Amino acid sequence: MNTTFTALAIQQATEQYQQIRARTETICQPLEPEDTVVQPIVDVSPPKWHMAHTSWFFETFLLQPHLSGYKPFHKQYSYLFNSYYNSVGSRVQRDQRSTLTRPPLRDVYAYRQHVDEHMQRLFKQLDEGKDKSKLAELLSLVQLGLQHEQQHQELLITDIKYILSTNPLLPVYKRPLHQPENSKATKASFLEIPGGTYTVGFQGEGFSFDNELGVHEVLLADFRIMNRLVTNGEYLEFIQDGGYGDFRHWLDEGFALVHTQHLEAPLYWVKQQDEWCRFTMHGLEKINPNDPVCHLNFYEANAYANWAGKRLLTEFEWEAASQVHPPTGGNFVERGRLEPSAAEPAVKGVQQLYGDVWEWTYSAYHPYPRFEKAPGAIGEYNGKFMLNQMVLRGGSCATSESHIRTTYRNFFHPEKRWQYNGIRLAQ
Amino acid sequence: MNTTFTALAIQQATEQYQQIRARTETICQPLEPEDTVVQPIVDVSPPKWHMAHTSWFFETFLLQPHLSGYKPFHKQYSYLFNSYYNSVGSRVQRDQRSTLTRPPLRDVYAYRQHVDEHMQRLFKQLDEGKDKSKLAELLSLVQLGLQHEQQHQELLITDIKYILSTNPLLPVYKRPLHQPENSKATKASFLEIPGGTYTVGFQGEGFSFDNELGVHEVLLADFRIMNRLVTNGEYLEFIQDGGYGDFRHWLDEGFALVHTQHLEAPLYWVKQQDEWCRFTMHGLEKINPNDPVCHLNFYEANAYANWAGKRLLTEFEWEAASQVHPPTGGNFVERGRLEPSAAEPAVKGVQQLYGDVWEWTYSAYHPYPRFEKAPGAIGEYNGKFMLNQMVLRGGSCATSESHIRTTYRNFFHPEKRWQYNGIRLAQ
Amino acid sequence: MNTTFTALAIQQATEQYQQIRARTETICQPLEPEDTVVQPIVDVSPPKWHMAHTSWFFETFLLQPHLSGYKPFHKQYSYLFNSYYNSVGSRVQRDQRSTLTRPPLRDVYAYRQHVDEHMQRLFKQLDEGKDKSKLAELLSLVQLGLQHEQQHQELLITDIKYILSTNPLLPVYKRPLHQPENSKATKASFLEIPGGTYTVGFQGEGFSFDNELGVHEVLLADFRIMNRLVTNGEYLEFIQDGGYGDFRHWLDEGFALVHTQHLEAPLYWVKQQDEWCRFTMHGLEKINPNDPVCHLNFYEANAYANWAGKRLLTEFEWEAASQVHPPTGGNFVERGRLEPSAAEPAVKGVQQLYGDVWEWTYSAYHPYPRFEKAPGAIGEYNGKFMLNQMVLRGGSCATSESHIRTTYRNFFHPEKRWQYNGIRLAQ
Amino acid sequence: MNTTFTALAIQQATEQYQQIRARTETICQPLEPEDTVVQPIVDVSPPKWHMAHTSWFFETFLLQPHLSGYKPFHKQYSYLFNSYYNSVGSRVQRDQRSTLTRPPLRDVYAYRQHVDEHMQRLFKQLDEGKDKSKLAELLSLVQLGLQHEQQHQELLITDIKYILSTNPLLPVYKRPLHQPENSKATKASFLEIPGGTYTVGFQGEGFSFDNELGVHEVLLADFRIMNRLVTNGEYLEFIQDGGYGDFRHWLDEGFALVHTQHLEAPLYWVKQQDEWCRFTMHGLEKINPNDPVCHLNFYEANAYANWAGKRLLTEFEWEAASQVHPPTGGNFVERGRLEPSAAEPAVKGVQQLYGDVWEWTYSAYHPYPRFEKAPGAIGEYNGKFMLNQMVLRGGSCATSESHIRTTYRNFFHPEKRWQYNGIRLAQ
Repeated sequence: MNTTFTALAIQQATEQYQQIRARTETICQPLEPEDTVVQPIVDVSPPKWHMAHTSWFFETFLLQPHLSGYKPFHKQYSYLFNSYYNSVGSRVQRDQRSTLTRPPLRDVYAYRQHVDEHMQRLFKQLDEGKDKSKLAELLSLVQLGLQHEQQHQELLITDIKYILSTNPLLPVYKRPLHQPENSKATKASFLEIPGGTYTVGFQGEGFSFDNELGVHEVLLADFRIMNRLVTNGEYLEFIQDGGYGDFRHWLDEGFALVHTQHLEAPLYWVKQQDEWCRFTMHGLEKINPNDPVCHLNFYEANAYANWAGKRLLTEFEWEAASQVHPPTGGNFVERGRLEPSAAEPAVKGVQQLYGDVWEWTYSAYHPYPRFEKAPGAIGEYNGKFMLNQMVLRGGSCATSESHIRTTYRNFFHPEKRWQYNGIRLAQ
Repeated sequence: MNTTFTALAIQQATEQYQQIRARTETICQPLEPEDTVVQPIVDVSPPKWHMAHTSWFFETFLLQPHLSGYKPFHKQYSYLFNSYYNSVGSRVQRDQRSTLTRPPLRDVYAYRQHVDEHMQRLFKQLDEGKDKSKLAELLSLVQLGLQHEQQHQELLITDIKYILSTNPLLPVYKRPLHQPENSKATKASFLEIPGGTYTVGFQGEGFSFDNELGVHEVLLADFRIMNRLVTNGEYLEFIQDGGYGDFRHWLDEGFALVHTQHLEAPLYWVKQQDEWCRFTMHGLEKINPNDPVCHLNFYEANAYANWAGKRLLTEFEWEAASQVHPPTGGNFVERGRLEPSAAEPAVKGVQQLYGDVWEWTYSAYHPYPRFEKAPGAIGEYNGKFMLNQMVLRGGSCATSESHIRTTYRNFFHPEKRWQYNGIRLAQ
Repeated sequence: MNTTFTALAIQQATEQYQQIRARTETICQPLEPEDTVVQPIVDVSPPKWHMAHTSWFFETFLLQPHLSGYKPFHKQYSYLFNSYYNSVGSRVQRDQRSTLTRPPLRDVYAYRQHVDEHMQRLFKQLDEGKDKSKLAELLSLVQLGLQHEQQHQELLITDIKYILSTNPLLPVYKRPLHQPENSKATKASFLEIPGGTYTVGFQGEGFSFDNELGVHEVLLADFRIMNRLVTNGEYLEFIQDGGYGDFRHWLDEGFALVHTQHLEAPLYWVKQQDEWCRFTMHGLEKINPNDPVCHLNFYEANAYANWAGKRLLTEFEWEAASQVHPPTGGNFVERGRLEPSAAEPAVKGVQQLYGDVWEWTYSAYHPYPRFEKAPGAIGEYNGKFMLNQMVLRGGSCATSESHIRTTYRNFFHPEKRWQYNGIRLAQ
Repeated sequence: MNTTFTALAIQQATEQYQQIRARTETICQPLEPEDTVVQPIVDVSPPKWHMAHTSWFFETFLLQPHLSGYKPFHKQYSYLFNSYYNSVGSRVQRDQRSTLTRPPLRDVYAYRQHVDEHMQRLFKQLDEGKDKSKLAELLSLVQLGLQHEQQHQELLITDIKYILSTNPLLPVYKRPLHQPENSKATKASFLEIPGGTYTVGFQGEGFSFDNELGVHEVLLADFRIMNRLVTNGEYLEFIQDGGYGDFRHWLDEGFALVHTQHLEAPLYWVKQQDEWCRFTMHGLEKINPNDPVCHLNFYEANAYANWAGKRLLTEFEWEAASQVHPPTGGNFVERGRLEPSAAEPAVKGVQQLYGDVWEWTYSAYHPYPRFEKAPGAIGEYNGKFMLNQMVLRGGSCATSESHIRTTYRNFFHPEKRWQYNGIRLAQ
């Protein structure tokens, strides 16, 4: 890098750092201190923990090894706020995060500020440094830390939603700025994607996760993709047709789950005086039939597809479709709605590939060819989770627009419902 | 009652009300909001819940039925803060109390204030009322509410201790005002209590719980009672003698518990560099060998007694001993120490019957003869728990002095350790 | 003992030994080998295990220490068939007994025969022996072994009933020899038992368990005892009155059990075309309203008593009543019916104290005063179970007549239903 | 089909039927009746159940719908011995199969004979029948029933092994006819398989399962395959190198399993006096370092591969390799050894693709393109299990030679260890 380029890169990183870090605090702003400490299910982490853990990441991987003279904010935080990095040492067990009533929220804010100030010093040190040899590595670590924080921002939103939903008072997280206009129905159609050899995986400049690397070619047969996401109204037909009670639509383990968990509708749906409502970030609302259906597990998505006589896409079909119909924009977190929105009847072609809801694919989250874990703790980021999870594509209304790519591979266990997950069909 | 007496009784109740209600808030004063919402084990209730539930008791049983024109503070609190009264309706399940991140702590304080102000009005209404017919009933309900609040004050202390103990930072609840002087050992001895017919149960004026009524005579054989509580030092000998590993000392279910829960010392004991310490309300402290041993389950108490070649008392032996050696004073919550204290070498006779630790007896918590439940919700107070629990006597360092009696029957399941429970021996 | 007396005692023991050991095999005769190995719930032991364990008892406590030159039948049986004697060494865990598909049933019969033949040699050795010093101790151990075998005979019957009941084919254990005549209703009445000092516990000659020793006096108030057991017809009224759904009748833990276990009738009751039937040792039969109700847990017995406005007896009240109305005979295992029978309308006074069903008392199974465990393994027989269990009195239709006494203390956890347990009321 | 061909096809099916059905009984011949009824873990079915269920398959899908005048052997067997076919109706729950102590083993043998005799009649009816229209369909169902029985034969062997292994007596299933000669080590090497487009899935004549259909092309990169299976000796190095304790080799859920299940070696390995032995069908034997390692879960296989610096194959790589190096013969059940055997040093090229152990692949068991479930109950055979399981290839020493194909897809959950599963590496 030449000097000018370097200075620019550092400046850019600094600005991005400030912007992303600030968003975390914006997300937590409507919370009471008590909201930030509980863990109603093991999947959900206390918001205070998210706030601290994202700071821990910068402290552990940037400040401690790279900022001369850095002293940790608190000697036990390394233990308290490690998530799952065995390389970094022992830690509070995942299901014990609600024991951390201390440090109190104000200390966590102070921790964030401490880390932010020292990150500024690190940026300055980088800018002034004569030895530029480590610059690329450090900027790449900063980038990883920010992408990591964006992932936790999405989790913060889904975890806050879950926490508030368990409260009998059904608290409102935030009223929407504008009430959405009355949406109109968009007719479903299926668009042809030609078969052939497609190149999948991440190539080119910019950030990607290690699980997107290993670019390779795949052979696909012709297929057709639905022009939009499946809606609440369509899913309601499945419910009303007795879909949850008919084993023929279901994978065996999914049908067992229907019984043990008494499933009869998506997560957050409740019937009030014979009318379906759903708990949203804006409180309890009536179901809008044109909005994308959301908070489904993989089994529900797949059972719906079977009932409809269609199927889910594979992750490579999704990626190929996004090459044929490149998505532009979408209902991401920046819009502030925090719930999926109806498709636009006026749009021709494939819409909603980006944003609204993550789309379950019928692809297992496995390594791409030539996948390699990074050495050390950073190598624990993705690779060790590559079993028993399914890939989701496209981002949701809780994802940052700057975080998504068409090669992005999100992944969850098939029974998880608390993320903004929905359905797109293929045939 | 004549008018003067009535006025006096109401004034007394009013003062007692203010004093006891204020203590609850004093107990919670050192807590962070986050401390007040978690529930690390199902036995432990969130402090915020205790604060609200004790107010709910007055609102439900006094204000709603008896204060004209009273409007509940919040229409859902009846559901949120009911503990176990089926008669009052449905409620948040016991193991779901940590979902109540809302109402936030400040609303619970407002709820308390609202209830307190209206209780003042009720007292005033009583004082001014011409119809005195219900006065006795209402004062008795007030008394029950205050005794109930005192019970929850003890639970608050034990629950706070448990909550703080699960935190890796081992937070200090409160530094003691004075460091206790170096205690001295008090030699153990056994004092004769003559056999014969004793009258047990509550008689006379004043408050008692329904489980103490049913005064009756019991025949006891001669026995001998230990002059003080068993100490940490004595219990340590049991540990060092391999007591936890020798099935001969243990009830069968207790020995199974030793294995499944990996018991090797009382709750809160930890070994630091080969030295036993314990987590206390003042932080982590070295074991004082002269202090009473504490936080044991019944199985540990009984195994220790077997190891020592002695036995535990029955609840009637304890009550008989307290008739022969009436206790005066003790280390109760009013002393502010919140941990048991060493016996006094200078005292002759039986000491520590009151305060320090509840003493496990080998008596099941069963109804006394002619036990009757009160009609309605109040009848759910004690009777429905009369199985599978063991009686404890004498109060602890977390009990109010004004709450205890020699006929008082506390009760817990034999495996519970988080209360201030300890050992006195008989032979 | 003089020589004649000795010879007589040995001869008597020999005969009793043969008779009791033979009954075990009679009980198992109708079983398939497959019936003898399964363990559908942890409470139930495989019949093959019972057959082997009772032999293990004689081998371990009599043959090995006392028959010169005795060689164990198989060196691993000591491990396989130990029940809970820590003193004897490690053992197959209780919930793993169904892993013992080997040794096959025929080997267990061979084991029984081996033990029986060597017991004959031991009796002979005793008879011929010059040193009579150990005679009393050995005869007492033989007696203990036989009483132990009788206890397992009762368990065999209840365990076989449970095993067969889980099979969708509802197999018949054995058709009754005679169909019982149509029974008639016996009117319920309550007979006065005067209060005062009663002596309880075992005294005199003959065998008793250690838990009956410690004869002592108890003071009882006047009470009244029901003349017979509660019937199916009476219990059905409780069911039809919504008894299982009304919390006011229930202990709190019992009412929770009603919900988690979906209780709505006694164990083995099933509704066929709107008619209540019950699985019996003779197959599925219609409920006979005059027969004693059976297979209840303590909570059901107590809830019924509350609903009826009565109460259960304490174990000392039961024993006092049996002194005032000494029972003679009863529906024991010798009658071969294996199900409880209706009371006799013609009988005046208290009937059914013996046989039919064990009667739940509201007394915890705790040690009597001066209770002492025997030294060594035999000391593990009773004492280590003295917590969390309730005393039952009087024997059942699966008990041997020669096994019961009015001082006999049976005990089970309050939630257990698979024994022949029923209800007698007091007021 | 012409008449001669038809007669031949029926004769062939008849012979195959007799041969395969007889093998089931041969497998069960060494068992005691008690061995045939237990279910130590939910994965394992009682052998008696396997014997009955395979007959139920013929009765349900062939005799009842297609043999005129057929009367079921027993009207409740349809309920008792249905495995998981919702279309056929309700059934004994999978974890309740050990409740079926009745029908006894001899009745199950009679059931088998009854079904066999009537199948002979059905074959005769087919042979004599004028209407040949259904012949192909019926012969295809017979074929499915026989393939189904062969699958249960493999399960019978693995389940019997598990059942015997839980018994402290460690019973021998069967002594091997010949002791294997001392095996020699075969040097590991890696052989190049060229990348390109391969056609995978079943094509051509003969039987296949629906999950192999949907022939399609896949693009593979060049890779190298290990010439033989990983051996006990090699795996022991992994153990001795602390492989089970080093998180870096493991998938996260696998490493958690290592801790919760205390894994430290393959299933059935035990250390005796510091020497590793393993429970086999021939009893307890010392580890042979040249034999293939066996009874591993997917996590262990994958961790070993990581430790060795290699990886597992995908199922398509395995299938491609089998096209380049077509396997001929292998250590299948017909050899009667029932344990994997060492590779042959003399063999050049890839060996052991067939037999010995199923090879875990890093491929999820998902539907092939255009996968369709058959209509009705037969459609429940494979499709509903296509999630959360991993594909294994090549058959084992418990598989029938006539049952395997290079396109055969076996599948198990990644944590399962009781099948004969092992490792082949790729790089």
